[in-house]
Amino acid sequence: MKIKCESIIQNDSLQEECAVFGIWNHPNASEITYLGLYALQHRGQEASGIVSSDGNTFYIHKNVGLVADVYKPHILATLKGYHAVGHNRYSTTGASNINNVQPLFSVGKDGPICIAHNGNLVNAKELRDELAKMGALFQTTTDTEVVLHLLARTIGNWKERFKQVAEKIIGAYTLILMTKNELIGIRDPNGIRPLVLGKLNDSFVLASESCAFDLIGAEYIRAIDAGEIIIINAKGLHSEYFANVRKTTPCIFELIYFSRPDSQMFNESIDRTRREMGKQLALESPANADFVISVPDSSNAAALGYAQTLGIPYEHGLIRNHYVGRTFINPTTELRKAGVKIKFNPVATLVKEKRIIVVEDSIVRGTTLKQLTKLLRSAGAREIHVRVASSPIYFPCPYGMDFPTKEELIANHYSIEGIRKEIGADSLAYLSYEGMVSACPDYNGGYCTACFNGVYPLNYESYSGKFSLE
Amino acid sequence: MKIKCESIIQNDSLQEECAVFGIWNHPNASEITYLGLYALQHRGQEASGIVSSDGNTFYIHKNVGLVADVYKPHILATLKGYHAVGHNRYSTTGASNINNVQPLFSVGKDGPICIAHNGNLVNAKELRDELAKMGALFQTTTDTEVVLHLLARTIGNWKERFKQVAEKIIGAYTLILMTKNELIGIRDPNGIRPLVLGKLNDSFVLASESCAFDLIGAEYIRAIDAGEIIIINAKGLHSEYFANVRKTTPCIFELIYFSRPDSQMFNESIDRTRREMGKQLALESPANADFVISVPDSSNAAALGYAQTLGIPYEHGLIRNHYVGRTFINPTTELRKAGVKIKFNPVATLVKEKRIIVVEDSIVRGTTLKQLTKLLRSAGAREIHVRVASSPIYFPCPYGMDFPTKEELIANHYSIEGIRKEIGADSLAYLSYEGMVSACPDYNGGYCTACFNGVYPLNYESYSGKFSLE
Amino acid sequence: MKIKCESIIQNDSLQEECAVFGIWNHPNASEITYLGLYALQHRGQEASGIVSSDGNTFYIHKNVGLVADVYKPHILATLKGYHAVGHNRYSTTGASNINNVQPLFSVGKDGPICIAHNGNLVNAKELRDELAKMGALFQTTTDTEVVLHLLARTIGNWKERFKQVAEKIIGAYTLILMTKNELIGIRDPNGIRPLVLGKLNDSFVLASESCAFDLIGAEYIRAIDAGEIIIINAKGLHSEYFANVRKTTPCIFELIYFSRPDSQMFNESIDRTRREMGKQLALESPANADFVISVPDSSNAAALGYAQTLGIPYEHGLIRNHYVGRTFINPTTELRKAGVKIKFNPVATLVKEKRIIVVEDSIVRGTTLKQLTKLLRSAGAREIHVRVASSPIYFPCPYGMDFPTKEELIANHYSIEGIRKEIGADSLAYLSYEGMVSACPDYNGGYCTACFNGVYPLNYESYSGKFSLE
Amino acid sequence: MKIKCESIIQNDSLQEECAVFGIWNHPNASEITYLGLYALQHRGQEASGIVSSDGNTFYIHKNVGLVADVYKPHILATLKGYHAVGHNRYSTTGASNINNVQPLFSVGKDGPICIAHNGNLVNAKELRDELAKMGALFQTTTDTEVVLHLLARTIGNWKERFKQVAEKIIGAYTLILMTKNELIGIRDPNGIRPLVLGKLNDSFVLASESCAFDLIGAEYIRAIDAGEIIIINAKGLHSEYFANVRKTTPCIFELIYFSRPDSQMFNESIDRTRREMGKQLALESPANADFVISVPDSSNAAALGYAQTLGIPYEHGLIRNHYVGRTFINPTTELRKAGVKIKFNPVATLVKEKRIIVVEDSIVRGTTLKQLTKLLRSAGAREIHVRVASSPIYFPCPYGMDFPTKEELIANHYSIEGIRKEIGADSLAYLSYEGMVSACPDYNGGYCTACFNGVYPLNYESYSGKFSLE
Repeated sequence: MKIKCESIIQNDSLQEECAVFGIWNHPNASEITYLGLYALQHRGQEASGIVSSDGNTFYIHKNVGLVADVYKPHILATLKGYHAVGHNRYSTTGASNINNVQPLFSVGKDGPICIAHNGNLVNAKELRDELAKMGALFQTTTDTEVVLHLLARTIGNWKERFKQVAEKIIGAYTLILMTKNELIGIRDPNGIRPLVLGKLNDSFVLASESCAFDLIGAEYIRAIDAGEIIIINAKGLHSEYFANVRKTTPCIFELIYFSRPDSQMFNESIDRTRREMGKQLALESPANADFVISVPDSSNAAALGYAQTLGIPYEHGLIRNHYVGRTFINPTTELRKAGVKIKFNPVATLVKEKRIIVVEDSIVRGTTLKQLTKLLRSAGAREIHVRVASSPIYFPCPYGMDFPTKEELIANHYSIEGIRKEIGADSLAYLSYEGMVSACPDYNGGYCTACFNGVYPLNYESYSGKFSLE
Repeated sequence: MKIKCESIIQNDSLQEECAVFGIWNHPNASEITYLGLYALQHRGQEASGIVSSDGNTFYIHKNVGLVADVYKPHILATLKGYHAVGHNRYSTTGASNINNVQPLFSVGKDGPICIAHNGNLVNAKELRDELAKMGALFQTTTDTEVVLHLLARTIGNWKERFKQVAEKIIGAYTLILMTKNELIGIRDPNGIRPLVLGKLNDSFVLASESCAFDLIGAEYIRAIDAGEIIIINAKGLHSEYFANVRKTTPCIFELIYFSRPDSQMFNESIDRTRREMGKQLALESPANADFVISVPDSSNAAALGYAQTLGIPYEHGLIRNHYVGRTFINPTTELRKAGVKIKFNPVATLVKEKRIIVVEDSIVRGTTLKQLTKLLRSAGAREIHVRVASSPIYFPCPYGMDFPTKEELIANHYSIEGIRKEIGADSLAYLSYEGMVSACPDYNGGYCTACFNGVYPLNYESYSGKFSLE
Repeated sequence: MKIKCESIIQNDSLQEECAVFGIWNHPNASEITYLGLYALQHRGQEASGIVSSDGNTFYIHKNVGLVADVYKPHILATLKGYHAVGHNRYSTTGASNINNVQPLFSVGKDGPICIAHNGNLVNAKELRDELAKMGALFQTTTDTEVVLHLLARTIGNWKERFKQVAEKIIGAYTLILMTKNELIGIRDPNGIRPLVLGKLNDSFVLASESCAFDLIGAEYIRAIDAGEIIIINAKGLHSEYFANVRKTTPCIFELIYFSRPDSQMFNESIDRTRREMGKQLALESPANADFVISVPDSSNAAALGYAQTLGIPYEHGLIRNHYVGRTFINPTTELRKAGVKIKFNPVATLVKEKRIIVVEDSIVRGTTLKQLTKLLRSAGAREIHVRVASSPIYFPCPYGMDFPTKEELIANHYSIEGIRKEIGADSLAYLSYEGMVSACPDYNGGYCTACFNGVYPLNYESYSGKFSLE
Repeated sequence: MKIKCESIIQNDSLQEECAVFGIWNHPNASEITYLGLYALQHRGQEASGIVSSDGNTFYIHKNVGLVADVYKPHILATLKGYHAVGHNRYSTTGASNINNVQPLFSVGKDGPICIAHNGNLVNAKELRDELAKMGALFQTTTDTEVVLHLLARTIGNWKERFKQVAEKIIGAYTLILMTKNELIGIRDPNGIRPLVLGKLNDSFVLASESCAFDLIGAEYIRAIDAGEIIIINAKGLHSEYFANVRKTTPCIFELIYFSRPDSQMFNESIDRTRREMGKQLALESPANADFVISVPDSSNAAALGYAQTLGIPYEHGLIRNHYVGRTFINPTTELRKAGVKIKFNPVATLVKEKRIIVVEDSIVRGTTLKQLTKLLRSAGAREIHVRVASSPIYFPCPYGMDFPTKEELIANHYSIEGIRKEIGADSLAYLSYEGMVSACPDYNGGYCTACFNGVYPLNYESYSGKFSLE
């Protein structure tokens, strides 16, 4: 049960968060959940779990590793039944403990119940202490278990019960629960993390992103609303609101980086939004160069938007090694310089003697870009102009993004000019805050942009760093 | 997390139960616990777990399999700290679920706590339902988790708190608990399952049987009393009684079969007690034969006692294959006759044409003996006289022995003469109930002999079969 | 040792072949070889092996799986010494047998010797039979073992000995051998498979492609010539020619598909050559559409070249799931339609109602393209114009490309118009043979284009299908 | 492929050697071979392999570990066909390399052939060098591979061919070979290692010992003769002699220690022979004591014979932990004193204050006995009289017994009195050489007693220590 994973390279990207998936009433429930988790692999590569049910018995399998490694045919065969909930997990929060791998499963007054969670509760520690005083026993170190314990102390129908829970918990939470009789989908009153509803023949499906529906051939119906609770059971689908929606503020970083470009949000593909960000960036901060390259694949769309807007050629200047797994043997001292090259290699004949615009989606610590510019220069690049398709990140995220502390964010240490020097670029420009927001789909609501401007929508202002239950 | 173990052969023996081990304040705590569990392997071969602690952080490792397979050097290295609790488990009660492997670990108002249990609670289901109504969430299907939840609802010092728990739970329980600050040993008010105290230099150790002390070089101090709670912490060892001892009734089957012959009980080695049973059996039911053989190794001592008393030679007539593991590929139909031969093979040249007395420790379903007599006859044995060093078993055990139901016990289906026919012996005799009890050490208390005479010491008379939480 | 890998999806692409890597005289020999194999992972994902040596003892590790899975820190630690040879293997030729995983190792009159091979011998079966008659024992089913047996029957210096071997073997072979005293690199007289030489400080390195040098920070020196033998030992590097070069005919498919775009060939990056093919394709077969997309990542460069030439926007229309591993649970019947979607998902909002040009690098069976057009149409594409950046493939390859038989090649079943219908495109055009060859670097030699025109450079004309030793 | 097994305890016993098994023409060939290897597990616990055949295709599985671990149902299912050969291996001779695990398999002029070997060739190194000069390539470091290479260089029928091989090889060899058309059993001209023939319905079986027949329900027919070759094929069984039997000299240590007591040799069970040795020992060196104990289970029979002869009670004074596996975590310094206690624990109440006779089967290094006497003394034994049921061992064994060098044999360092002091016994006596031989079955031949008297039956007198190919 001890797990030790050496991280590949000091990754500057935001660590992905979590994926949830659920299906009710399908003869291949666990198989479909497997495919759904597969399509959502980009949201969490640390561990995966599926709980299936035939309405009576629950079947569980979970383990650390990629979806393709965790499930094998003989394993899927044991996950019987017509209903299933799945989860991919990034975070290693808590002791690296298989108990922490979701979905969590427990038996209480409601009988067996399982839960899968994407997001983060800001006041989990306080709630744990409070619940412990009342006799609750915690067998994981996840904030998710808090929800189970709170639920076990409520009465009424599910909407009423969840309303009581929602009055206690503060944070971002997209939840899928499964009992003997129903599959329940919940999105927090701010709608910070995504959750979408689909239909596969006669079965309803819930997923973090619509790209999961594409793979299983399900029809996309709509996004679950902020504050909405969806109950799927033998009688069909039932929707209610367990909370007065304060202000819908979905995480803008889902658009910038997290979600897959082929997923939809607000009737718009993520790809289109990122293209828009690239376009806006081009208008705000054009550059003169021989061509534009992306840092594949996360900034592909933004780079293309940037290049097309300015009429500068778009090129594949960095080749990505797609066999980079979760674990990689860290080279010994002399070979550490391999560094980012394990993931990216420049096409030397292309970049040689050229003036290049590198479009990146965001800068967190700045370490990857620093290595990349070095790599490009040693391949002969004459000029490197970095353009970032989002604004500088100044604040940590308490809502489920595995962000570094304030101290680790490069924007808190340098001016833009200082960052430019630090990463070794010839010029550097970020997308303006206004430009970034304006590139996002306009719907009757706003976005959580706390990491950019420090405005935490949940008024939990004291938050000042990495959240931990331990 | 799905575990499927094919059982070796339809085993007539009683399935072993569980082993507990604990040590406080030793630089090699987890290593010593490993050795202790190793010496106690005979009490449980299904799964094993160790929780260690440095007084602050807890380290956990558990898995299905034998002690030698579950722990490897790199695993033991992760089990840091000065204190440790270990558990070997037989029972697959509950969904085969690694969550069920003990020690259980949870965090509640007492902070982190772990528990290892040998025994069985008779009223666990009722208590679970009651606790669930109060909001308790169960993440295992063990009765042990009930104790954790009850404890979390008590106040006072450990003695007082455990007194409150003891008022609720009915059954057999030898428990070792560990918190940040203490190691706690508990034996139920009837003292059904054993627990002994030892000392290794400056460290106190607790174990199911004294043979664990021999291996680690610890000094045997004494048995924990029925109803006693031992608290070991920085201040030393503190003993109290949390219950008025109703009537001490240790399980007589520990003497007949469970415990290792080199362990001590009531200042007597188990070996001596079994020898005494064999002797008594010889006096009650002598037989005329060329020699006496045992069913190795469980009836070695009784067979020797029987042979010596009558002056008949003792021989090694059955060779046991010691490489029989927990899992064995069941042969296809044609080869099923391999059956018990996978475990035992008669020495043909020895048994040929001979009159043999087979001394067995007990008969449960009768299947093994039936196969053995067939095996001996086909090897040429002329006469087979079976002598059983305990009385006929008529009643199931609710106190932790993995016993079959009434229906499966052969003694409920046939008279002694009928059993003789069924197993194919030329003669059959059991040790009388009185003879059996008289062979056990005489101390100021009695024994639980419920499986022989149906007198359940805990007045839980409604009990009628295999206990299950599911 | 039995290995069963279910293939991901019915893959239309050419199966990759093999990678070889060798280093002499470096304190981190096995670690560097690991990195080199990592960079060459695209040439073989079935299995990997490293043999290292301290000049006296040889250390071996090989297993099926990806490089990142086959080697772990404790494994690399056992691969001691200063010299190493590594191999990545695609082919499952032969019984799936770990013995077949290269490098092969044997001990004969030359002492210990190991060999890594990329290519394929056309007359391996005849040679095996002949050698067997002379008493040779084969413990693998690889053609590579034939080389070892032949070598063991030669005398003289390495050049002379290999000359004798080269007189016997017909086919494509890039070989790296290692003995106690030297590292030997060999490229067949036609130079069909690539092999390049580099320098890392004082150590010489050999690799299938130059991208391996980029990762380890080695300097690219030059390609090994056709018919050249390079001997690296304590005295340095020594080059000779063991064969009169008939006609240098490197495999044109290395340029079209196999090699990584950031690798160099004939002083030109593969990326540039593919761009040139796309450009040529645009000139020959322009199309009118809203944008151009590639089938990521193999046709990225050609698609970009095509788009830039015609001034049509280039878009990322297909999102590739990078977590597709070697094994994937094949969905049950109902879910088989998942098919190619496991690997690619169209960006629906982008392709909807649009006229699209799909640039593919080559068409083998046509199955992937057929699925892709269906996928794009169901995402709303209005027109789909397929452009292929190479010529139609009519002939199988006996030189190491894991090609289907004549019967499986779609071009042998349909006219171009027939293929268009079969794959469901609105228009289809291939690059002309002349255009394809003209896009390749012009050096003083030609290319093997046997799969396109049936001109087998080794005059082994009887060849008519998949080669197999069994 | 690197294997590292920490040995349990410094084992004084002789390391077991190897087991061979073969069956021809049975629908459950691999399953029966599995059971046969299981029954022969005591002859080799390091690794195991089975090769099966349907007369056309060969199926192979081999791995390190115990039989019960190496084969699982899904593995056995892949070992198809009607014929099979199996092997259990002790020795780690050669680089710990899965290639070395037998049966070896190769393809040469005879087509596919596999071989399983028990024994040791004394002149393997010379033959390897000679064969290598002729172009042979060795892919294992076993002496067994030499036989394959020699065979590949012979012509004629199997008898003639093996006669040619036998003229070259010197040593002990019991071989089972399998080709497409026959199963071949061979025993060397001295008959040093055992091989027996049985019948299971219409199928012939070959095994190292008859106990394998008992488990699978086969009928014992006879032992293969020294110098005999048995050919089993579609026409039935054919026996010939490939060698003039010099002098039949089966290994006396098979009787003393190696073989299972329930196996037969010379129409006598091993158990009876060992009993006879104990009886002879009692007559030669009686002792006065309270009781006799054995070192379970290897000296059980001898101890019983000793006790019965003198009329002294036989007791179970040492309890053996049967869960001791091949690997055991070596305790840290402080805990090393656990030592032999991991395997044996004295029954303290039995041995306390008693005068004990310990009967051991043999003494090699003396380390186990030294630890055991210490253990018994600390358990309170008053007198310890050691009696050894064989003679002092002075010479190493070149014929397959994994014996220490001369230097490691305690008898080469001390007189009997010196050994007594060294192991800490109150008295010590060995069985006389004459007594030992006279206890063995009297047949028209002798025994190899080279380890006792240095008379090597193969006149390979220069032999002076542990044999190694490396």
